[in-house]
Amino acid sequence: MRVEIWSDIACPWCYVGKARFEKALAAFPHRDAVEVIYRSYELDAGRAKDDVLPFLTMLTKKYGMSRAEAQAMDENISSQAAAEGLEYCAQGRDHGNTFDMHRLLHFAKEQDKQGELTDRLYKANYAERRSVFNDHERLVELAVAVGIDADAARTVLADPSAYADDVRADEREAAQIGVTGVPFFVLERKYGISGAQPAEVFTQALTQAWGERTPLEPIGGTGSDGADVCGPEGCAVPQQG
Amino acid sequence: MRVEIWSDIACPWCYVGKARFEKALAAFPHRDAVEVIYRSYELDAGRAKDDVLPFLTMLTKKYGMSRAEAQAMDENISSQAAAEGLEYCAQGRDHGNTFDMHRLLHFAKEQDKQGELTDRLYKANYAERRSVFNDHERLVELAVAVGIDADAARTVLADPSAYADDVRADEREAAQIGVTGVPFFVLERKYGISGAQPAEVFTQALTQAWGERTPLEPIGGTGSDGADVCGPEGCAVPQQG
Repeated sequence: MRVEIWSDIACPWCYVGKARFEKALAAFPHRDAVEVIYRSYELDAGRAKDDVLPFLTMLTKKYGMSRAEAQAMDENISSQAAAEGLEYCAQGRDHGNTFDMHRLLHFAKEQDKQGELTDRLYKANYAERRSVFNDHERLVELAVAVGIDADAARTVLADPSAYADDVRADEREAAQIGVTGVPFFVLERKYGISGAQPAEVFTQALTQAWGERTPLEPIGGTGSDGADVCGPEGCAVPQQG
Repeated sequence: MRVEIWSDIACPWCYVGKARFEKALAAFPHRDAVEVIYRSYELDAGRAKDDVLPFLTMLTKKYGMSRAEAQAMDENISSQAAAEGLEYCAQGRDHGNTFDMHRLLHFAKEQDKQGELTDRLYKANYAERRSVFNDHERLVELAVAVGIDADAARTVLADPSAYADDVRADEREAAQIGVTGVPFFVLERKYGISGAQPAEVFTQALTQAWGERTPLEPIGGTGSDGADVCGPEGCAVPQQG
């Protein structure tokens, strides 16, 4: 069973939502048959790479919140993160463009390191003091921490076209599916869950999607009807034509 | 829309079926929205790598066909291949273990070269005289022909564990889905098509699957119900909890 998670490292609810989903997954009896794929979604794609600013400042500038509103929002997320056992610095965190992180995550996917690098990037962004924005060497260091070769990561980061198509493809798919915010969880391309819902909601969704797995519907008859197929008994000679 | 094709380079109906599917796809109005993924299936996984033998000999030995039956079968495939415009040597072709080819195809997938390498391997196996079995340098040459780096291909081939898990995962999925012969086409994990069916069957399947694409069913309410989500308007402060 396949679960796709559209998310952004710069999205605090994605950080919390991932933990809630994983709590549900860890308790799901068929967890070993669940494949989790992370898909790219940039919350702030239009921001220049060198336009890095404190998270709270971004909230006041971009969304017109008062400083108090921004702080209240961040403190709320902070307490919900704490409830999930996540480290979270409510202050002094940066915000910026995440395109390069998404490219690096697609590269990591090829090495079965996507989940680990996602975790490492979240932790770096939300629980550590050093900024992850506009700093390739910081990203290289985080990639190395999950077992990715430093030079390979550096090469990917230095070439802005590397894995750019993969990021864009994920974002196009998000638009087609109707994703307007993240985190967004898709099960079997059938069920959609928007936001960092409680673990119980993920449990319900996993259970429902699992229960509704249906066998494939055959089109055009099967091998025994004379279709041209190779199998354990050799390659069939069709009865007709 | 996603189409997965389980197949094996050593399967002549896979070679023919791919051409028939592609004929249907080329005429399908929404072809640009169709993603094709090749999945591994070994027809003869138990054969030792160095146990390479002529295809017709394999048919007589493995399946107990008479020489005349084996030739008739191969000539039938040959004429059907010709009808699809495919080159096909009915004689003098080898058969063997394809595990290394599948590993290489998974490596090629990471570079968006899987489709091209599949084509190149089919052509080499069915239309060219030099054997593709138990000969890594031949596979390196074919990989290079589609733009893959020779040393990288060589490194993958030399390490029998490289991409082995990907091959096994595809084969496990085939078993779960109930695939007992190839080619086997799966559309949207909903429809299954067994064998090298006529292009019209693929057209029908593509049309049907496309028409039945359904919007995702939401679970747990949406962002507007107070779920914790970040989007164009910022990161929501939930109404409750």
